[in-house]
Amino acid sequence: MPQSWRKLAAEKRAIRDQKLAKAYKALADDDALEDLIFSARDVQGLVKLLGNHQVSAENVILAHINKAKIAQEQTNCLTEICFDDALEQARELDKFQKEHGRLKGPLHGVPISLKDQFDLQGLDSTLGYVGRSFEPAKSDCVLAEVLQRLGAIIICKTNLPQSILWCETDNNLWGLTTHPSDPDFTPGGSSGGEATLLHFKGSFIGWGTDIGGSIRIPSHMNGLWGLKPSSDRFSYRGVAVSQDGQCQIPSSVGPIARTLPSLTLATKAVIDAESWKLDPRVPPIYWKQDVYEAFSERTLVVGIMGDDGRVKPHPPVDRVFKDLCEKLKAAGHELVPWDPSMNARCIELMDEHYLVDGGEDIRSDVVSSGEPFLPHVEALVNRAKPVSVYDYWQLNKRKIAAQQAYHEMWNNAQSASNRPVDVLLVPTMPHTAMPHRTCRWTGYTKLFNFLDYTALSFPAGTASKALDIKAPDYEPRDELDKWNWDQYDAEKMDGFAVGIQIVGRRLDEEKVLGVAQQIQSLL
Amino acid sequence: MPQSWRKLAAEKRAIRDQKLAKAYKALADDDALEDLIFSARDVQGLVKLLGNHQVSAENVILAHINKAKIAQEQTNCLTEICFDDALEQARELDKFQKEHGRLKGPLHGVPISLKDQFDLQGLDSTLGYVGRSFEPAKSDCVLAEVLQRLGAIIICKTNLPQSILWCETDNNLWGLTTHPSDPDFTPGGSSGGEATLLHFKGSFIGWGTDIGGSIRIPSHMNGLWGLKPSSDRFSYRGVAVSQDGQCQIPSSVGPIARTLPSLTLATKAVIDAESWKLDPRVPPIYWKQDVYEAFSERTLVVGIMGDDGRVKPHPPVDRVFKDLCEKLKAAGHELVPWDPSMNARCIELMDEHYLVDGGEDIRSDVVSSGEPFLPHVEALVNRAKPVSVYDYWQLNKRKIAAQQAYHEMWNNAQSASNRPVDVLLVPTMPHTAMPHRTCRWTGYTKLFNFLDYTALSFPAGTASKALDIKAPDYEPRDELDKWNWDQYDAEKMDGFAVGIQIVGRRLDEEKVLGVAQQIQSLL
Repeated sequence: MPQSWRKLAAEKRAIRDQKLAKAYKALADDDALEDLIFSARDVQGLVKLLGNHQVSAENVILAHINKAKIAQEQTNCLTEICFDDALEQARELDKFQKEHGRLKGPLHGVPISLKDQFDLQGLDSTLGYVGRSFEPAKSDCVLAEVLQRLGAIIICKTNLPQSILWCETDNNLWGLTTHPSDPDFTPGGSSGGEATLLHFKGSFIGWGTDIGGSIRIPSHMNGLWGLKPSSDRFSYRGVAVSQDGQCQIPSSVGPIARTLPSLTLATKAVIDAESWKLDPRVPPIYWKQDVYEAFSERTLVVGIMGDDGRVKPHPPVDRVFKDLCEKLKAAGHELVPWDPSMNARCIELMDEHYLVDGGEDIRSDVVSSGEPFLPHVEALVNRAKPVSVYDYWQLNKRKIAAQQAYHEMWNNAQSASNRPVDVLLVPTMPHTAMPHRTCRWTGYTKLFNFLDYTALSFPAGTASKALDIKAPDYEPRDELDKWNWDQYDAEKMDGFAVGIQIVGRRLDEEKVLGVAQQIQSLL
Repeated sequence: MPQSWRKLAAEKRAIRDQKLAKAYKALADDDALEDLIFSARDVQGLVKLLGNHQVSAENVILAHINKAKIAQEQTNCLTEICFDDALEQARELDKFQKEHGRLKGPLHGVPISLKDQFDLQGLDSTLGYVGRSFEPAKSDCVLAEVLQRLGAIIICKTNLPQSILWCETDNNLWGLTTHPSDPDFTPGGSSGGEATLLHFKGSFIGWGTDIGGSIRIPSHMNGLWGLKPSSDRFSYRGVAVSQDGQCQIPSSVGPIARTLPSLTLATKAVIDAESWKLDPRVPPIYWKQDVYEAFSERTLVVGIMGDDGRVKPHPPVDRVFKDLCEKLKAAGHELVPWDPSMNARCIELMDEHYLVDGGEDIRSDVVSSGEPFLPHVEALVNRAKPVSVYDYWQLNKRKIAAQQAYHEMWNNAQSASNRPVDVLLVPTMPHTAMPHRTCRWTGYTKLFNFLDYTALSFPAGTASKALDIKAPDYEPRDELDKWNWDQYDAEKMDGFAVGIQIVGRRLDEEKVLGVAQQIQSLL
């Protein structure tokens, strides 16, 4: 006899809240220790403090538990809590360090969080579905296993939207996650819980997934660095997902962090941990330090797509983007205007893919508990018409043809000095953070899921009501463009972060992170 | 108004035969030049003759055209002919060499053939379907482009079975390809045309595809070396295939050759030609010379699966396999019995995959011309019931789970000295070449397509009526096993080649070729 979904959700939240209410021993009497811990901006700095015996792993975790609690109070970002286990692991690490006179690995003592898709033994992977409550995972996902081997400590899991396939963060189980700067605003999604937790310093690295922008969008809206690698560069084994089993347009696992050094170190460390030995889907490609270094230094050719041709970016995005282009030029890099004319075809094929199962996957997860559909999820499911497997294959052939055409366009692109294009520069979204349920266009990000390219969103600036004045005479291209344009509110969006993407091609993670290193120095 | 399929097929064959009938200028007056050319057993030897100006590319191609004609007369292995173009290219290469004082690349002047799936501009890629006749490809496939850049010369395309999904070689368009040693026997399939052409020295490297054993089976039946890499190690771009668009169990492109050095050189040269720059599906992984060399030399741990638990190998296969195991042991390598108990589940899931589109892909290709179904193709298509896309994804999840379970079994396997297993040794088929339409079990090969592992079939010995006596008291396991067992005919199969597979895990091409190097020295 199934319990009502409300009761199940209430039980799950009560368990979470009970764990959150638990009081842990305070850090040192004064605030000095906490200040010391958070003086470390990067993983590198934190690990140095640990290595020099200036802080213990236990105190690092205690300090982050406090921040995670604040993040939860402010934004409702947490789902599964494992503070006790994290502290236990931290004490083990401290013991290890004492016994061996060294740290366990490059992420020794670093507090980590995971989107509520990654299996952790004994905890649910709810995906935000009530019907997946109280079904604890039997083992850890490969990523968690690898992170722990590197010394990292997982302290909690974070919220995501019903169906995952959305750029905001809300569901019937855990509720709405809000933006740190304004509760009426969304922090983005689907990895929205990770982003607000990171904003409040409740974690050092957050791991999300991205099949349409779900790592990059919340990174952009919260002033963070988020990497969407090509699929399978990081292991998806033991990670639950909507439309699980589909392989025509794969979702990617990737990290989010407050700083580039943290992001780069986490990426390098996890890649070199040889996940392919645990998950045969991961290609055996070690971190390419030579590629990373080359692109950290050399003069670049950058393809520039400030507007995707469909939805015009709001004034802050436009200004920040153009400012960066000027800085790139001034630093001697070559810019190449990038042709957006293939975007529409790619987006169209991408959108077809979301619908091919007639919505059965998402529908079955929603109805299993009797919880209601969120409106946009219901619309998606109702719009979906199942196609035959044969037609699904034909769709894949069209996808591959479009990917190849895009690849050739890139191969044929050249700078004024006849050099090939290294990376693209593209806004992450056509707007900053927006009020809940007003985000409608993810074309700037999902294009690169369609292509399975590497894309990194970085904080490039902030909106300014003084600088970012809407042109009064803009004539929108269509209804969607008008909708988006009308959402711009210089007053309310003042100070919000603006992210921009650096885009490489398939399995170009080292290149993109190297380029990011150069771009950071220009900001 | 569609023409009758018979007329179309007759036209295609007439065009082929006309090209085959064309007389080319003879080589040097005596046979010395031909003898010199065919004194080169490997690509390395041939390229050396070319580099030393002992032979011209033009004469190499002329000599191979003669052999290809003989192969066609004997076994009906050819489909599209491009002798004229090949000679034209050869003359260009000779000119290049004269002008530049060097060879164009590591495959300069090497005659190459392609299974009739690979697009070559201006020629059909028929897949053996009448309905695909007279639809010439608009451009070369990536593999052909890369091979030509390396200096190789494509001289023709070769036969394959209707539907491709078969271990023999017959279709209504080009007809039946027969075994070089006995016209009543099949050369295997689906890359059967490549194998007989190579047997007659009509080509130095044949490129095939393998989704169930299609490279390894004809290699085995014709005493050749055939490599089935993991999918996408070689580009599939511009290669037509049955069930095109399906990505859950991908087909692989791979080479076949008479010798291991030829196979290894071709593999290395094509990998290092960076096909990923032309085809984003190819992972950017250069040839790992260190891995290759390590496994060429070090003491190995070899998992031994002489019987897959379903269909018992015929006496020649059993004897050759056991002899090799003894040699490995005597050379100091460690053998580990390999558990076949997971095979059945893998094969079952693999077989489900063939049927998911309700046979629509193959049916539409067959009916487009009105040609009849071959009996086994008709049976396959009729057996197929279409499933929903949602169920197709669930099947993929079961596949991934089985792949992971197999991967873990391998991770957990150890030798007596607690070392991990490097590779497996497995018969390629439970029998040698067989009479036409009697091959029924490809479980020994398709297991490794299911797992997307690397597998190489090499000639390990030959059947001997004196040595390979059928045990009179064998009690077959089931109908299939009985069928196979009853096919053994010591007299008729005397002298036929026996192949064995070296199997590595995903993207283990360098390891498998390194191990092959060691095993060859034991033979």
